[in-house]
Amino acid sequence: MPIATRAFAATAADKPLVPYSFERRDPGPDDVLIEIKYCGICHSDLHMARSETGPASYPLVPGHEIAGVVKAVGSSVVRFKEGDRVGVGCMVDSCRECSSCREGLEQYCVPGFTGTYGAKDRKGGTAETITQGGYSDHITVDQHFVVTIPDSLPLDVAAPLLCAGVTTYSPLKEWKVGPGSKVAVIGLGGLGHMAVKLAAAMGAEVTVLSTSDRKKADAERMGAEHFLISSDKAAMKAAAESFDLIINTVSATHEIAAHTQLLARDGTMVMLGLTTEGLPVYAVPLLWRRRRIAGSLIGGMAETQEMLNFCAEHGIVCDIETIAPDQINDAYERMLKSDVRYRFVIDMAKMAA
Amino acid sequence: MPIATRAFAATAADKPLVPYSFERRDPGPDDVLIEIKYCGICHSDLHMARSETGPASYPLVPGHEIAGVVKAVGSSVVRFKEGDRVGVGCMVDSCRECSSCREGLEQYCVPGFTGTYGAKDRKGGTAETITQGGYSDHITVDQHFVVTIPDSLPLDVAAPLLCAGVTTYSPLKEWKVGPGSKVAVIGLGGLGHMAVKLAAAMGAEVTVLSTSDRKKADAERMGAEHFLISSDKAAMKAAAESFDLIINTVSATHEIAAHTQLLARDGTMVMLGLTTEGLPVYAVPLLWRRRRIAGSLIGGMAETQEMLNFCAEHGIVCDIETIAPDQINDAYERMLKSDVRYRFVIDMAKMAA
Repeated sequence: MPIATRAFAATAADKPLVPYSFERRDPGPDDVLIEIKYCGICHSDLHMARSETGPASYPLVPGHEIAGVVKAVGSSVVRFKEGDRVGVGCMVDSCRECSSCREGLEQYCVPGFTGTYGAKDRKGGTAETITQGGYSDHITVDQHFVVTIPDSLPLDVAAPLLCAGVTTYSPLKEWKVGPGSKVAVIGLGGLGHMAVKLAAAMGAEVTVLSTSDRKKADAERMGAEHFLISSDKAAMKAAAESFDLIINTVSATHEIAAHTQLLARDGTMVMLGLTTEGLPVYAVPLLWRRRRIAGSLIGGMAETQEMLNFCAEHGIVCDIETIAPDQINDAYERMLKSDVRYRFVIDMAKMAA
Repeated sequence: MPIATRAFAATAADKPLVPYSFERRDPGPDDVLIEIKYCGICHSDLHMARSETGPASYPLVPGHEIAGVVKAVGSSVVRFKEGDRVGVGCMVDSCRECSSCREGLEQYCVPGFTGTYGAKDRKGGTAETITQGGYSDHITVDQHFVVTIPDSLPLDVAAPLLCAGVTTYSPLKEWKVGPGSKVAVIGLGGLGHMAVKLAAAMGAEVTVLSTSDRKKADAERMGAEHFLISSDKAAMKAAAESFDLIINTVSATHEIAAHTQLLARDGTMVMLGLTTEGLPVYAVPLLWRRRRIAGSLIGGMAETQEMLNFCAEHGIVCDIETIAPDQINDAYERMLKSDVRYRFVIDMAKMAA
């Protein structure tokens, strides 16, 4: 029997999100039905809701930082049972057959993973072909794309780990950050504040680069040892050639060009932001120190679980501000002004009856 | 007693190179005096001679692909003796103390290596403070920056290995090319033709990307298995996501943007060209497959020797056209029209008396 679901949905690019009711599929053999308790708000939710990254299919229920409790499981599911604390991130399916999927890198699925919302659903019948996300009170997800949230992590502050957490954890692991590593984080927002906490917990010496010192105290509290203001030319010059890895959560045009100089020889700047314009990269600073610029996209499912376990072990959670579902539109406006420390999380218990 | 030296020098950015006589320093304890037999012409010689990469100091004797025979050695030199066949590349000195120098990566010397020409000479007295390059019949170089040219490599076809050879060998090694690797080379010129030969000898499956099929037969003769014309949209689409490494010897604006799509997941495009304009890089193709863009600069001295030994072992030399010193200006004009297969080499024996 399909699952009656209450949600908030965008109905057009230029309209606010409104209450929306629809049905989730009844769990199949491999499915987990989750009662969503909290869902984080990612900047890409806003981009998608407003068709800023291509035309969206409306109504669209955003949300891919989902934390909740298992309500029912399909007949083949043994990893989860009713009452388990679980999470769902940016993916709800993938081809399972390509080289990336076989390596546990579902985010790089060659034919493409199925996004948690706004994507053609591989399991969808004729009635539900586009996925709908976590701004809702229930979701049905294949068990492969469900992770366990360790008991020590409260669900509200764990929710954004499913996107912001793994998006920063994955490149820190890929580029082998550990004790002795010098890591810079550009932009102290939803992604950036997680990058600081995770890199510091891995033993790195962390520097935050920002346009002002407004967030200096926060950065230090999160584990940053240094704070660099990008307009301070003398400080920037002194920091030249010093970082093994720069996690760039901003990807604004000027930052790519100027900040590559901060990389040590063989250092890498990893871009995490989905900017669509071309960013001017200069060959000379790359050649001169064999520097690298790379991209990284969320993380695989095994890595997502590993990240949650790491966070539990090190007591790492997101800094959040909890809102009711009917405050989503206000939250979007505040997010556009960077007025959030550091992630909005929707409390589904506050969904109006 | 200073060494009387005949050369060709640029005297101004807008004037042709002319015969020029000057004196090299008498070999000090660590120096090797070399009688230059051949010198390759690199595109950067032209850039420097014409002050296109910043104001040059005139008179300027270009040339950093030097092959010759040892004429005398200083008292501390034991690696070389009179009559040895030797080479000198893009560097004649470095600080010897920084982390890069200590790791044998003198090309990334933190205070900066001493270029073979047009650079402030660390060993220079008041009379000779700017280095002068290989378009000359003698050069005095510190032994650390002299390499042995194996007997099986003729000096004329070995000369360009000192820049074009090591510039392509180094990234192929750094990015671990070997049997099973899929390597694309953009641009079949001086650098590109060496990249093809070296990558093929390392066991890679090599594809040449070019704007026309003019050089297809050459590419295949050099070891390329595939030839891709970048305007052939169907072929380019079919080649998407297929290369582990792209050696970009061109770095023209459009190529960075379009060709990153050709990289497999975790693949790297290495830029070798010293372009000065900003190249637009798009974040989405990098993020979507964790692709990387990197720079690489020549190679260290130990690696240069390793490359020469590898070439001797595999019978690899440059494809060259030999010219007399008084044909340098004509060669520059032909180089600007890409009318060279694949490197001009100056025969110093043809220096007018």
